[in-house]
Amino acid sequence: MTSTIESVRSRPVSSGIPERSRIPVGVLGASGTSGAELVRLLSEHPQAEIRFATSRGDAGRFLDEIEPSAPAVRLVHPDDVNPRDVEIVLLCVPHGTAGAAAAACANAGCRVIDVSGDHRLSDAAEHRRVYASERDESLAAEAVYGLTELCGEELGTARIVANPGCYATATALALAPLAEAGKLAAGALPVVDAMSGVSGAGRAASARSHYCSASEDVRPYSGGRAHRHVPEVEQLLRRMDPAGAEHRIVFTPHLVPLNRGILASVTVRGVSEADVRAALQRRYDGCAFVRVLPAGRDARIRGVTGTNRAHLAVTPVDGTDAVVVTSVIDNLLKGAAGQAVQNLNRMTGLPETTGIPGAQQ
Amino acid sequence: MTSTIESVRSRPVSSGIPERSRIPVGVLGASGTSGAELVRLLSEHPQAEIRFATSRGDAGRFLDEIEPSAPAVRLVHPDDVNPRDVEIVLLCVPHGTAGAAAAACANAGCRVIDVSGDHRLSDAAEHRRVYASERDESLAAEAVYGLTELCGEELGTARIVANPGCYATATALALAPLAEAGKLAAGALPVVDAMSGVSGAGRAASARSHYCSASEDVRPYSGGRAHRHVPEVEQLLRRMDPAGAEHRIVFTPHLVPLNRGILASVTVRGVSEADVRAALQRRYDGCAFVRVLPAGRDARIRGVTGTNRAHLAVTPVDGTDAVVVTSVIDNLLKGAAGQAVQNLNRMTGLPETTGIPGAQQ
Amino acid sequence: MTSTIESVRSRPVSSGIPERSRIPVGVLGASGTSGAELVRLLSEHPQAEIRFATSRGDAGRFLDEIEPSAPAVRLVHPDDVNPRDVEIVLLCVPHGTAGAAAAACANAGCRVIDVSGDHRLSDAAEHRRVYASERDESLAAEAVYGLTELCGEELGTARIVANPGCYATATALALAPLAEAGKLAAGALPVVDAMSGVSGAGRAASARSHYCSASEDVRPYSGGRAHRHVPEVEQLLRRMDPAGAEHRIVFTPHLVPLNRGILASVTVRGVSEADVRAALQRRYDGCAFVRVLPAGRDARIRGVTGTNRAHLAVTPVDGTDAVVVTSVIDNLLKGAAGQAVQNLNRMTGLPETTGIPGAQQ
Amino acid sequence: MTSTIESVRSRPVSSGIPERSRIPVGVLGASGTSGAELVRLLSEHPQAEIRFATSRGDAGRFLDEIEPSAPAVRLVHPDDVNPRDVEIVLLCVPHGTAGAAAAACANAGCRVIDVSGDHRLSDAAEHRRVYASERDESLAAEAVYGLTELCGEELGTARIVANPGCYATATALALAPLAEAGKLAAGALPVVDAMSGVSGAGRAASARSHYCSASEDVRPYSGGRAHRHVPEVEQLLRRMDPAGAEHRIVFTPHLVPLNRGILASVTVRGVSEADVRAALQRRYDGCAFVRVLPAGRDARIRGVTGTNRAHLAVTPVDGTDAVVVTSVIDNLLKGAAGQAVQNLNRMTGLPETTGIPGAQQ
Repeated sequence: MTSTIESVRSRPVSSGIPERSRIPVGVLGASGTSGAELVRLLSEHPQAEIRFATSRGDAGRFLDEIEPSAPAVRLVHPDDVNPRDVEIVLLCVPHGTAGAAAAACANAGCRVIDVSGDHRLSDAAEHRRVYASERDESLAAEAVYGLTELCGEELGTARIVANPGCYATATALALAPLAEAGKLAAGALPVVDAMSGVSGAGRAASARSHYCSASEDVRPYSGGRAHRHVPEVEQLLRRMDPAGAEHRIVFTPHLVPLNRGILASVTVRGVSEADVRAALQRRYDGCAFVRVLPAGRDARIRGVTGTNRAHLAVTPVDGTDAVVVTSVIDNLLKGAAGQAVQNLNRMTGLPETTGIPGAQQ
Repeated sequence: MTSTIESVRSRPVSSGIPERSRIPVGVLGASGTSGAELVRLLSEHPQAEIRFATSRGDAGRFLDEIEPSAPAVRLVHPDDVNPRDVEIVLLCVPHGTAGAAAAACANAGCRVIDVSGDHRLSDAAEHRRVYASERDESLAAEAVYGLTELCGEELGTARIVANPGCYATATALALAPLAEAGKLAAGALPVVDAMSGVSGAGRAASARSHYCSASEDVRPYSGGRAHRHVPEVEQLLRRMDPAGAEHRIVFTPHLVPLNRGILASVTVRGVSEADVRAALQRRYDGCAFVRVLPAGRDARIRGVTGTNRAHLAVTPVDGTDAVVVTSVIDNLLKGAAGQAVQNLNRMTGLPETTGIPGAQQ
Repeated sequence: MTSTIESVRSRPVSSGIPERSRIPVGVLGASGTSGAELVRLLSEHPQAEIRFATSRGDAGRFLDEIEPSAPAVRLVHPDDVNPRDVEIVLLCVPHGTAGAAAAACANAGCRVIDVSGDHRLSDAAEHRRVYASERDESLAAEAVYGLTELCGEELGTARIVANPGCYATATALALAPLAEAGKLAAGALPVVDAMSGVSGAGRAASARSHYCSASEDVRPYSGGRAHRHVPEVEQLLRRMDPAGAEHRIVFTPHLVPLNRGILASVTVRGVSEADVRAALQRRYDGCAFVRVLPAGRDARIRGVTGTNRAHLAVTPVDGTDAVVVTSVIDNLLKGAAGQAVQNLNRMTGLPETTGIPGAQQ
Repeated sequence: MTSTIESVRSRPVSSGIPERSRIPVGVLGASGTSGAELVRLLSEHPQAEIRFATSRGDAGRFLDEIEPSAPAVRLVHPDDVNPRDVEIVLLCVPHGTAGAAAAACANAGCRVIDVSGDHRLSDAAEHRRVYASERDESLAAEAVYGLTELCGEELGTARIVANPGCYATATALALAPLAEAGKLAAGALPVVDAMSGVSGAGRAASARSHYCSASEDVRPYSGGRAHRHVPEVEQLLRRMDPAGAEHRIVFTPHLVPLNRGILASVTVRGVSEADVRAALQRRYDGCAFVRVLPAGRDARIRGVTGTNRAHLAVTPVDGTDAVVVTSVIDNLLKGAAGQAVQNLNRMTGLPETTGIPGAQQ
């Protein structure tokens, strides 16, 4: 691996900030959906400088030929980059391969943000069951689960951060504060119906992502508790619950015909609207990217598209003991690349909102 | 009101069936979304003959100028038609106005299929609460709730049929057989997350139905138990339950960016997959339009678009006592015009599938 | 190849027509976009009976698993069918392979409708240049170019019919009557900007057909005179021109974000609106599927979606010698499967509209 | 009119630039599609400060309730603002009303950028014919036609700038350099087929902009030379032509199912690819927002969505004397709000790209 600083053809318009002070970063797996979005964000980030953006299959091409909304950064082969050139590596490679890459980077002295699923589950056996792959368990044991608003101070010193899944982010933002407040009864079994745009499935062409299949359709998939993001959420709820109780969820994801966005409709029994609202507001007070909407205003995907925001709406179900929390995010931003940059900012001591669209004012 | 047989400019290609044997029908409110779909179906129905199709606002225009997929039938003003010219009147006028129209038609000796909500709720006080309008309660007391597969022999002699709502149809097809089988515990509180295409909101132009608002968005609305279709479903569950128990549901509808189709994701606790599957199969065995999908096959909207079919899929939720039933229909067919024709066929002794797309073979 | 009559699991609802009188047909390449649409149409055709529907890659599966709008016909391997079981074979296999299949079928005594491009161009050298493949030139010499409204009586006795391309159909319907009427000056160089839905590119998953690429985009491709449908159109214009003059066209196709439909915007200089309108009306007078719209009414894709219709609108360009003809079709019906059935009807002496949606009344 | 600086609830995150140095601006008609986009851009512009954003119908509401992608700026009634509070007023009110507003602002000493059509046509009679309304002709005589790349130094001192129409921008960027280079023959009659997303029609709900009408459709409208943007383009071509020759164009706009974006497909005869390419490159050399794509790369809308960029592709038509130039822009940015800010930057001596997404690096 050799340095490829020259591989970046185009540079952001100078912001007047001295080059020297910028944080050198690298993106592994830059041609995927999350990777390209991350390159787009980082190329406009006033304090970061992309030293390399790799792609195994598309090395040599410019990223905007693959994803027209991304900048014209030349992709290099991962064998041709040196992690020692950067301070932080962001991993957007497929799960199953991120484990080894993370270990290599950590050994080279880099800090790592893993956007894949390889470091999200702390239990080794659970990880193997869910992802059917191996990883460096000692490194995994260090990983901070980077749902930024729910992390403590750990990000500041973390060597490796596991960036949460998109569905997990939308779901956990709604549920974790309830668990934390002790308002989630054992066996409450929250019901989560979630809907994701097609970008959630990545760039790979498939029968399912074909325009003529995805348009004019809604379809469920990976129902029951089979989706890989379920154990992430359940692990977090257990951690947040002061009693450490286990919480299962019903999770039914659906593919809907839009590009970007996730809506999670979360129905919880045994709580009051006031309790839910209080728990959410306490947790997200002062957060730049999470907004609890006033009563009567519905959370819609368009309210967060193109931003790192999450909107949460709370609706009581008249005549019952149930409350519905609707949570919306842009799956590529708060659900992936945006949250990765948010974590990067926290890891490096920058203001949390630096270079991220949608901060509340 | 005078006869306007001449108002129908174009006639279906002759099917060789003698004109004399066709059932004369009329459609009031033909320029709305359901009305236009109904005219389209009836114009190709081999045993029905449209004698009039009315519109208060678009009288004089041809229907295909308003809805290009509909035939070129000339719309007439409702004051210019005589219900005595027809055997059955189909009401697609807005709720609140269908009550009076139904009474006038019934007094003229017609049978009525009311596609609006005006005769769905049998309790007068409940009707007033939900629809904030009056109706002829003695006629309402006669109304048969026309969810065809769940009706008995009543349709054969019914003077008035209340065609169910689109969301109610999708939801009730999933839940009513469980209630009927005694498998729906009191307080089970099924959670229904439903998604509808934009045609469900009708043809009226609004900020919400604007292309630039509805595309690239998903938004909930009328959450809690506030949607008008909720009492319909709860009334039916009570009737189907052998113990007559009351059943409430959590119902959260969402607007999704497609033209046609509804998906209802119904989560029920306290039942086994086998029980659910058995209850559904027993109820829908031999039904031409309802199919319980084999295990492992997901119910998707595209599987029913353009047909009168409903597909039901049953998914157990591993490690819990919950089962998810996904129910999909085309909101304009099984959810409105298709079911209306299905009811018309049953009312007149025709084979149930006559002139309706999507019958199973 | 052995008979596989039993391969069709489900049969159309009996129409009362004796089975014996139905025309036995087979579809080769039934799992592609055009093939599946053809099976859908033929399965509801009152006078045709599908004896086999083949797929090399999906043999053994039911067609509705691949294309949910299609019927549940079991696909068989092409090696397992016998063309002698049928009267007409419809070829929906890729161009380059249809030539050999057509020859085999013809040798077995079948008549052939080739939906691929393999028999559209009569000149052997031109065919090789455009399609870079070989075919049986003696069979090709017999092929009738099946743009139904522009064919004479030849279809009745044709052994092989070349079903036109989708863009070619939309374009030629607008231009051929002008050439026929001698109103297309040499060198007039009509400018054709055409837009097609994504189904025009077939079912193969690709970067281009990915929902997240095709939605929210319009893109030109194969511009200049590079598209394969250009020589088809130019060949037809030469044949229709009483003077046999050569006519070139500028043809720029665009991919637009919809499922089905083609719009061709055809600008012609040196003609008057009256001349154009007269030529079109003369040619299409009495045609069940082609409608010349009255002045002031725009041709829109939604006016023909789901039907075999073509709508043509004529707009003069004020202050110039140019006229714009807009031509719209459903690319899978009039542009492929619908026209194939229209040709089948003409080949077998059935009424032209039998079993085809959208005939004018 | 009183100052309403306090009406802006939320302020951009401080950029460290002293408040004092920011240019105070006001937006009249901020709740429309262009107005909301302009507020979005200006609220993030490092050197501008929005002092008021008005709406006659929505005064008192926050803009993000109307357009979720816009910031939460409180709209005020136009009677409650004082143009003296600002240096530049941007007019996004409907044409026909901008004329009077411009005069009032100019009289109060403001400079004006009129995003409506009221000052685009210099000839008074032509203006009346096209827009059927009156304006202050002496002010109109001063107006600079603000197609930024084609303006000279006039913007620096202009009191009023007429921001071009969206279709006019896309079309003129392709054609004006040819006229300027003397390569557009008299009578060449370029053929422009253009396609616009639905936002081009504004926010007003109508039958045409209804999701269920616009989706799955393409439709032409205002064909011939009837569209209001035609005289703008023809006026500019005349001005750019060194011989001052008049040039007519065939212009056929189409509504396509996407939110944002315009593609203009411009076919010109009598020119060579090399001539066209040379004329475009000469004109746009060094321009931050206009890119002439290399041969073989198609101009697609997704390449410019969300940016102020224009992409131009040049395709020769083999065997003819025609060349096709494809021009794509985001209709709300380069076609409206983005170009308005570009003009504002030039008017005030700021770097042209300040605060505008998509500058080339």
